[in-house]
Amino acid sequence: MAKHRIGIIGATGYTGSELARILVNHPDIEIAFITSESRAGETFSAVHPAFQGILDLPLQSVEEALSILSPPELVFLALPHGVSMQYVARLQDQPFSIIDFSGDFRLSSAEVYQQWYQKPHTYLAGFEQAVYGLPELYAEQIKTAKLVANPGCFPTSAILALAPLLQAGNHRLSSLIIDSKTGVTGAGVKASGTTHFSNAHDNFKAYGIKSHRHTIEIQEILGQASQSRAQVPPVLFTPHLLPLDRGILSTIYIPTPDPCSQAQLMDVYREFYADKPFVRICGHSPSLKEVRGSNFCNLYIDYDPRTQTILILSAIDNLVKGAAGQAVQNMNLILGLPETQGLNLIPMQP
Amino acid sequence: MAKHRIGIIGATGYTGSELARILVNHPDIEIAFITSESRAGETFSAVHPAFQGILDLPLQSVEEALSILSPPELVFLALPHGVSMQYVARLQDQPFSIIDFSGDFRLSSAEVYQQWYQKPHTYLAGFEQAVYGLPELYAEQIKTAKLVANPGCFPTSAILALAPLLQAGNHRLSSLIIDSKTGVTGAGVKASGTTHFSNAHDNFKAYGIKSHRHTIEIQEILGQASQSRAQVPPVLFTPHLLPLDRGILSTIYIPTPDPCSQAQLMDVYREFYADKPFVRICGHSPSLKEVRGSNFCNLYIDYDPRTQTILILSAIDNLVKGAAGQAVQNMNLILGLPETQGLNLIPMQP
Amino acid sequence: MAKHRIGIIGATGYTGSELARILVNHPDIEIAFITSESRAGETFSAVHPAFQGILDLPLQSVEEALSILSPPELVFLALPHGVSMQYVARLQDQPFSIIDFSGDFRLSSAEVYQQWYQKPHTYLAGFEQAVYGLPELYAEQIKTAKLVANPGCFPTSAILALAPLLQAGNHRLSSLIIDSKTGVTGAGVKASGTTHFSNAHDNFKAYGIKSHRHTIEIQEILGQASQSRAQVPPVLFTPHLLPLDRGILSTIYIPTPDPCSQAQLMDVYREFYADKPFVRICGHSPSLKEVRGSNFCNLYIDYDPRTQTILILSAIDNLVKGAAGQAVQNMNLILGLPETQGLNLIPMQP
Amino acid sequence: MAKHRIGIIGATGYTGSELARILVNHPDIEIAFITSESRAGETFSAVHPAFQGILDLPLQSVEEALSILSPPELVFLALPHGVSMQYVARLQDQPFSIIDFSGDFRLSSAEVYQQWYQKPHTYLAGFEQAVYGLPELYAEQIKTAKLVANPGCFPTSAILALAPLLQAGNHRLSSLIIDSKTGVTGAGVKASGTTHFSNAHDNFKAYGIKSHRHTIEIQEILGQASQSRAQVPPVLFTPHLLPLDRGILSTIYIPTPDPCSQAQLMDVYREFYADKPFVRICGHSPSLKEVRGSNFCNLYIDYDPRTQTILILSAIDNLVKGAAGQAVQNMNLILGLPETQGLNLIPMQP
Repeated sequence: MAKHRIGIIGATGYTGSELARILVNHPDIEIAFITSESRAGETFSAVHPAFQGILDLPLQSVEEALSILSPPELVFLALPHGVSMQYVARLQDQPFSIIDFSGDFRLSSAEVYQQWYQKPHTYLAGFEQAVYGLPELYAEQIKTAKLVANPGCFPTSAILALAPLLQAGNHRLSSLIIDSKTGVTGAGVKASGTTHFSNAHDNFKAYGIKSHRHTIEIQEILGQASQSRAQVPPVLFTPHLLPLDRGILSTIYIPTPDPCSQAQLMDVYREFYADKPFVRICGHSPSLKEVRGSNFCNLYIDYDPRTQTILILSAIDNLVKGAAGQAVQNMNLILGLPETQGLNLIPMQP
Repeated sequence: MAKHRIGIIGATGYTGSELARILVNHPDIEIAFITSESRAGETFSAVHPAFQGILDLPLQSVEEALSILSPPELVFLALPHGVSMQYVARLQDQPFSIIDFSGDFRLSSAEVYQQWYQKPHTYLAGFEQAVYGLPELYAEQIKTAKLVANPGCFPTSAILALAPLLQAGNHRLSSLIIDSKTGVTGAGVKASGTTHFSNAHDNFKAYGIKSHRHTIEIQEILGQASQSRAQVPPVLFTPHLLPLDRGILSTIYIPTPDPCSQAQLMDVYREFYADKPFVRICGHSPSLKEVRGSNFCNLYIDYDPRTQTILILSAIDNLVKGAAGQAVQNMNLILGLPETQGLNLIPMQP
Repeated sequence: MAKHRIGIIGATGYTGSELARILVNHPDIEIAFITSESRAGETFSAVHPAFQGILDLPLQSVEEALSILSPPELVFLALPHGVSMQYVARLQDQPFSIIDFSGDFRLSSAEVYQQWYQKPHTYLAGFEQAVYGLPELYAEQIKTAKLVANPGCFPTSAILALAPLLQAGNHRLSSLIIDSKTGVTGAGVKASGTTHFSNAHDNFKAYGIKSHRHTIEIQEILGQASQSRAQVPPVLFTPHLLPLDRGILSTIYIPTPDPCSQAQLMDVYREFYADKPFVRICGHSPSLKEVRGSNFCNLYIDYDPRTQTILILSAIDNLVKGAAGQAVQNMNLILGLPETQGLNLIPMQP
Repeated sequence: MAKHRIGIIGATGYTGSELARILVNHPDIEIAFITSESRAGETFSAVHPAFQGILDLPLQSVEEALSILSPPELVFLALPHGVSMQYVARLQDQPFSIIDFSGDFRLSSAEVYQQWYQKPHTYLAGFEQAVYGLPELYAEQIKTAKLVANPGCFPTSAILALAPLLQAGNHRLSSLIIDSKTGVTGAGVKASGTTHFSNAHDNFKAYGIKSHRHTIEIQEILGQASQSRAQVPPVLFTPHLLPLDRGILSTIYIPTPDPCSQAQLMDVYREFYADKPFVRICGHSPSLKEVRGSNFCNLYIDYDPRTQTILILSAIDNLVKGAAGQAVQNMNLILGLPETQGLNLIPMQP
């Protein structure tokens, strides 16, 4: 059978190279083009030497990529927010579906976007078109989407951890506290004080306190996922920067006056994720290396009667389930392929 | 003036070597002996090569150390819990004060100890004698103590973060959630699966969920520190293991129905710690490297009106303010020296 | 087509889990059994949680594995040296081929073994049977081997770097200096002072100075590979321990009175490795992350006219090309499969 | 006694903050000013938060610092090469001595400088005035120097390792191979691809192959240090980048036809460094953590009869003995203070 041809816009970032890492071995996919405005003319492997002999495709400008080729079936936008919306607008009449890695189309409206991203939105039509690309919740809508807003990394870890609880609706919740820790790739490929080795290595700190943009993304999607929107209390989300490359662990605290047991909770989660191949319910505290390089989300669910609090741990690889792997999962749904195709990535431990 | 002679029982662990790192440069202290049962006869620098030419003192057995010398003024016990209580019992008639690093005398009773440490206590008299060695709260009692229970590393970070709030008593509190992250030295010098490089490096996970012994230590001391013991809700404490050597960051969440502002809270903390040289109130999110190698505790205090939650960040070096530095601070108080003597340790950043 | 059935003896070490990571996705292989004496009865994923839902096979004792099943076609021995030779002796009449990860059958004789391994050899017949499993040099012999001695990790990096030069025989060599740096997984899964996080992290040192066992392995194989054995000077090999999990970089210095150029040398190497899929000749200084998780060996070759020295850099993943990947490459040759089958492992960078 | 007043020009880099870390606790020094053109007006602790409450001095422009104050006795230039020479020229009539951290005045002539630094030199008079600031070799000249060229970090590690051997002159040498490994702080505080966490972390590679500027610095100073300049063969120096903050380990190989023993060599080194407080001759392979944060250079010397090669290991902290600590050692000599004053820095291990 002929392979599906896809394009990648944005080659130099981590999501671009991670997409390539997955798609090179995908049995049904051919990479039609990869674009980079800043490094057009160079090969992909010149930018990412690990791909020498594996993916030596020359990088093209978007202009060139779209003019020469017969259009691909699907295009990934691996671009920063604010830039991405311009490309979505520009590509709106193209025949292909778009999976957008940025935050530009994940929220409910331009107003909410402006409030949390501190910049105006310039392509309002996208809010109607976009489907939130979390396949464990929205597989049916994704299959026919023209525009998929690939979820943020933190929201992926948090929403997968909370959706079963909120959908079950068995507990009254007064607070919802999400304490997340991410590797440095989450800050992007661009050199900065934050990503300087000697600032991040052997170090740890919180950032984006009270103001991180993923707060509202989590809040809105949980609102949709819950039995009754009124049930979801305001989300307090605090990210921290770990001295490692990949991975997000979210530790989630949910005080509740309604007693339960770990066994009851695990039943709810096992049922919710019964036919979801990438969510693993664990009997132990999951570590980041157990999911590193893979598309898995490892969940641990517990209840502490002393403090009347539900405690959930959620571990993902921010570049895979938190970005490129999830995007390929979405692509599989759109192209009518098995959801797990090309995603048999074994975690690399050690 | 003659130097004060002190002894260290237990040379091979991190607290032993960290004590040496501080005391070698302390202007008023002479190390009379350092003991090790397993490596008696070797020099301290044979066990800790960094000390070659700095501290080449031969290690002695406790038997030998106590029989030969005129007794020191003060002895540090750098031993595991369970072992420590035996030495305290054995040394009870000695003329020197004891600063004990273990958890054996930090709690209120043998019953509580047995419940959380899962072993019987064999020296009940110690509970009466011991003073909890957190100088920011108990300086007066420490000055005359015969037995000081040096606080645990996590409790130090948590109690310093919470005592001003609880003592002020301005807020009703329903939950008290302490999400802590520690470096691997917290797991001790002994080789194990937990401390194996390839298990800890590039990795991160929670451990001791719902059951860590420091939970009760935090709970009890906060109860003493608060305006009214009834005010302190059950503490939910979750430690995590960071892929770095030193440092604890505690992120603390306190939902409260009573509104306040960051400025109000910082005033409370600035006043509480006005004359406390090792607590620094920060206007930014503190990182572990800002305190690494030093005796500082860096605190950040904030209030989130969206979620009606007080949020506190607390950073210490677990081996210094969380162990050896705090012990030297206690020693200074007992020996009538300035509290900061020998503790002018500048954080090592990078 | 029916899959080839293979067995793995030794499940708990890094080579065992790395074999599993590769073979689970190998299209032509079925894992018939994995053994562990110490953890028989548990599942593979209980020992290696990253494999939850991927490889939940129960571990068996060797006894059990061999008695119940129809024999597999090939067995991997992922055991320590000294232990391995006992199993080879015990399994000598079995119908399957053996690929042995240990150093027990890599050297030329029991005498040489005893000299460098400091213990007697107990299965001398193995020296006759064993083929040195470096496919880039010995593919033909490997195809029909009953016993393959899978090369050491350092020797793999060094021999691939030097064989073309020595086989070309264009240079007189007076010294051959191999300065190698390895990640901590090279020290094995066992907890020890060497592998303790706080000894290895943020640290670096040489070890095994003048005496490492891989010295003689490199010396002997290079002797076979060179035009004339007399040509190979005594090898000076110094390993160092890097604060990372995976990877070996060998920096090799070869002073020579015979001038040459980088271009000439690269031609020799390009020709030698023309049809070898896992050796990449690089125009830049290779980094460990460019090969991490993959079966590649990245080589950089240069000549410094100022000092009349050939300089070679060689980068591999010690667990893949230095162990499990190379073993699968050998397996493919023995089973008549394409050499690269199942080894399309993209380096994980970052 | 009044303290000596010194100034620091250049506050934002690692050498500036490391100077501050040492001088804040130096009993005889007062920091008169610290300058920064880019961040003048902010406090030192705003740039380096670890210094909150320790050094809150406002940063000044050089202009301001020099106009307002009575001149200090000594000034440190913590500036990049190329920039430093401009300041030395500008400050030549000032009454204070200058210790320059850059490479601008370490070499023998403007011609050599231009050849290796690829830029013209603009202050030739400096070559006459400058003394090479390695106190173990040039203490007498340093005491009266008006301009000290503080050595490079790699040269410090290499020259201390080789000077005794070359001065003894007992061996004919054909090659001199220096394989060095440094932490990332050696690349400076500026964010770049090289210093990006995810490029350096978990990674390792060589750089500056055949062309690093420190090659000529080592070559020239060893030429001066040796019995006969002809004796020193061309130096082959290869630096590598370690995934850690601080430290340089140089592994040095010196093939020689003249047999010797480890004991003989160690005698030569022990005698050479008998009264040098910062060089430690080790009986074991030194690790970077044994010197981290301190002004020590740890040396291991060995001879391998199999390969007729002398092997030396040399470990320093690149920011201390390789930069700021050595500068303070030079300052002590110039100001007539004990050489070790303020340098009682205990290595931080772990």
